[in-house]
Amino acid sequence: MAYTDTPLAEIEKLIESAAQCFHLYKNSSLLQRQALLNEIAAELRKKADDLVATAMRETNLPEVRLRNELGRTLFQLESYGQACAEGRWLDATIETRANAAGAPVNLRKTLLPLGPVVVFGASNFPFAYSTAGGDTASALAAGCPVIVKAHPAHPETSTLFADAIQRAIELQGLPAGLFGHVYGISFSIGEYLVKHPAIRAVGFTGSLRGGKQLFDWAQQRQHPIPVFAEMGSVNPVFLLPEQLEAQGTALADQLAASFTLGAGQFCTKPGLLIAIESEPLTVFEKRLTDQVQKMIPVRLLHQGIADAFISHREEALRSSFVSTLALSDQEAAKMEGQPTVATVSAANWLQDRSLHQEIFGPYTLLIKCRDQQEMLTVAAALEGQLTTTIMGNDKELSTYRPLIDLVKEKCGRLILNGVPTGVEVCKAMQHGGPFPATTDARFGAVGEDALKRFARPICYQNWPNEWLPAELQDDNPLGLLRTVNGKLTL
Amino acid sequence: MAYTDTPLAEIEKLIESAAQCFHLYKNSSLLQRQALLNEIAAELRKKADDLVATAMRETNLPEVRLRNELGRTLFQLESYGQACAEGRWLDATIETRANAAGAPVNLRKTLLPLGPVVVFGASNFPFAYSTAGGDTASALAAGCPVIVKAHPAHPETSTLFADAIQRAIELQGLPAGLFGHVYGISFSIGEYLVKHPAIRAVGFTGSLRGGKQLFDWAQQRQHPIPVFAEMGSVNPVFLLPEQLEAQGTALADQLAASFTLGAGQFCTKPGLLIAIESEPLTVFEKRLTDQVQKMIPVRLLHQGIADAFISHREEALRSSFVSTLALSDQEAAKMEGQPTVATVSAANWLQDRSLHQEIFGPYTLLIKCRDQQEMLTVAAALEGQLTTTIMGNDKELSTYRPLIDLVKEKCGRLILNGVPTGVEVCKAMQHGGPFPATTDARFGAVGEDALKRFARPICYQNWPNEWLPAELQDDNPLGLLRTVNGKLTL
Repeated sequence: MAYTDTPLAEIEKLIESAAQCFHLYKNSSLLQRQALLNEIAAELRKKADDLVATAMRETNLPEVRLRNELGRTLFQLESYGQACAEGRWLDATIETRANAAGAPVNLRKTLLPLGPVVVFGASNFPFAYSTAGGDTASALAAGCPVIVKAHPAHPETSTLFADAIQRAIELQGLPAGLFGHVYGISFSIGEYLVKHPAIRAVGFTGSLRGGKQLFDWAQQRQHPIPVFAEMGSVNPVFLLPEQLEAQGTALADQLAASFTLGAGQFCTKPGLLIAIESEPLTVFEKRLTDQVQKMIPVRLLHQGIADAFISHREEALRSSFVSTLALSDQEAAKMEGQPTVATVSAANWLQDRSLHQEIFGPYTLLIKCRDQQEMLTVAAALEGQLTTTIMGNDKELSTYRPLIDLVKEKCGRLILNGVPTGVEVCKAMQHGGPFPATTDARFGAVGEDALKRFARPICYQNWPNEWLPAELQDDNPLGLLRTVNGKLTL
Repeated sequence: MAYTDTPLAEIEKLIESAAQCFHLYKNSSLLQRQALLNEIAAELRKKADDLVATAMRETNLPEVRLRNELGRTLFQLESYGQACAEGRWLDATIETRANAAGAPVNLRKTLLPLGPVVVFGASNFPFAYSTAGGDTASALAAGCPVIVKAHPAHPETSTLFADAIQRAIELQGLPAGLFGHVYGISFSIGEYLVKHPAIRAVGFTGSLRGGKQLFDWAQQRQHPIPVFAEMGSVNPVFLLPEQLEAQGTALADQLAASFTLGAGQFCTKPGLLIAIESEPLTVFEKRLTDQVQKMIPVRLLHQGIADAFISHREEALRSSFVSTLALSDQEAAKMEGQPTVATVSAANWLQDRSLHQEIFGPYTLLIKCRDQQEMLTVAAALEGQLTTTIMGNDKELSTYRPLIDLVKEKCGRLILNGVPTGVEVCKAMQHGGPFPATTDARFGAVGEDALKRFARPICYQNWPNEWLPAELQDDNPLGLLRTVNGKLTL
């Protein structure tokens, strides 16, 4: 089957339908939303084999990875549904104490969903960050209808997910307009969706160029809307000298595995390794080289990513500043990415901004610094990141305190002695970071707090109990933890 | 003394100094920040008479209003300081349970301040939303240095506040660069501040034109930053028929007082009254007219506001759609605003978008609808608002459920049988709303949740206790309520 751009007239109908649905769905109970997410998960479970087989064909990802990703996707749906029902994310707050002038007060604050949300599926997470992925799950949990633009690299997978979502909506007796699914290869489909006045927020996972374009369109609207674009990140890893000396072999093994995990197609791939020139660094390089040489090139997600990997990697390796440190012995066949480590001196890296960019695929760049001061200069030149990692022992952390303190300002997750790949789905996770890692560092895309992206506070003043949403009613029918007259209470 | 534009070289130094300070101040303890806000309040208390006298001269506001506003300003500083120290706003979250694969997890999330914040003082709140107002208090509490651009209408008042803040910083042994104060009449000063790469967020209270310009500059930066601009709002009041019949006199009295409170220079002034044509409406109009006729014109805040009020009011009254309903018998002298009520049919209001705009000053517009359906059409045509008010009895609320349900989507605070003026400072308040009421409906400018505007989540992975901020340490030294392994706990 060929998937061509959905005609604009059809998209218009889907958006109108979503906008109509919103008037109803915004008042849905938290339990109703949880039931919907659980129903979607149940539908997906039934289709697991079909989903995995289809995605294997469309994305080149291996079965074990896709089975894991499906598990994660189901967990997201179910755990966000549970968080939604538990209602803590609403931060329900009630004030009924008289004010300083003795006047009666009756103010009650909760969150109201924003309205129809457009979600752009990600190519590198055909399940967990696509059609029924984290953005869709959190928008539906927050009370928003969703229009998904299928990623052109896996339209058939996307269609299976969309069908499952539609079936779940039907089983739950909810209106079909709650979820729309469109195909689009042309830029103009994305533009139409983001600029449509009925659309109230955007979720995106992908390239800096793509995300920034959506952001610009959204901010140039007559009524600007929030865009949660999770974009590029090089996820720098600082290798402090004593740790490098004591653990060089283990670090080389960990990092070789991490930068090539999923063919280097994770947004948290360590794309920059930063160390100080020394004998232990030479040992580390040797081990890293040995590991990379043994690796087998893997097929990349799709032609666009394969082409971009090849051209960006070649461009970097052509730079007179950059030397190739390690390549897999086996050359890459068509569509494959050849595992590659390059090196550059800190002085040269600082001079050439093109070397600061993410290269999506199995590539990482080792920056060699003369000394601690130069390492700090490198840190200062970094842009916003999803993650930053420090590899160091207890003693040297103190020596490098200014470095650690500086990189905090530049990342959403600060890791000690671990690799950045592997993103736990839980409330304590922050998957986000300062621009250009994302367009809105104040929110995250993984874990139940992701719901908060799609809602805004509203205060009810003087309304009788029966007119209030359940979470604000006097008798607390949902049994939520709420702030009542300044105190957290049940 | 003449207040001229601060030279750019001097502004540059202040910003550099703020950026330097941030590296230290971001690590300040919550108690240190509370102590600073309390110290600022103490300095202001000492100067109360001078502050009030100076502001009376500069703003034409009466003493009693300014004394109240000073009280509110001190309350903001002290209550935001207390909220900061209590730490609930950080939503500290710790996860240490093994993951599904059995691997150890150690993730801890808190908020990190954004960096130097620029605050634009408001002309209509020379104390509570200017130099040491809500934006400054919440940014300092959140851990951000602040640069205030004094409002050109009250530079001397602003200077007194700035001196008090500087003195408090000195008394607390904090670096002077934590707070900068600049003067600027030219547009270019604002542009310089908002576009400066070291500035990380903007707070503003003022006109739609001004706020939108700051927003656009901020979004066009290489690294876009959040702008919290609280802008125009007409704060519609829907007068339902039975309530109008039963309470017409009281409603007329309340609304006459509300739209002229502070010479109509509040952002929550009811600028649109919406009712269905009927005999009780005629009675209401008569009473409103009587009340307005008796009013005394009051001096407006400054020449710019007086000029704008006169020209916008004249423009509205010149429209062939609009009739003048009531004017104060006493005409306005120079710089004064003459209390004015105009009327328009719903059909005509719907046709002429210029009548949807806020007119800042003692002016309100009564929209007369033919029936309930037309009232709903008016509601549907409204833009985003800080507040929307329903005046209705218990019985008719049900009849008007679709109206109530619709206006929820358009406002930050929904009021039943009360006037929108009067904004309680507490956590349950939401002072914000969909664009164009503000540029970011997901946050509010009043109450302790205002702190959240100036911070973003950061996750620490695998860090030993002594490297964690106090709110994330194992033994919970601050005694905060935190989410630990999914449960809220002390």
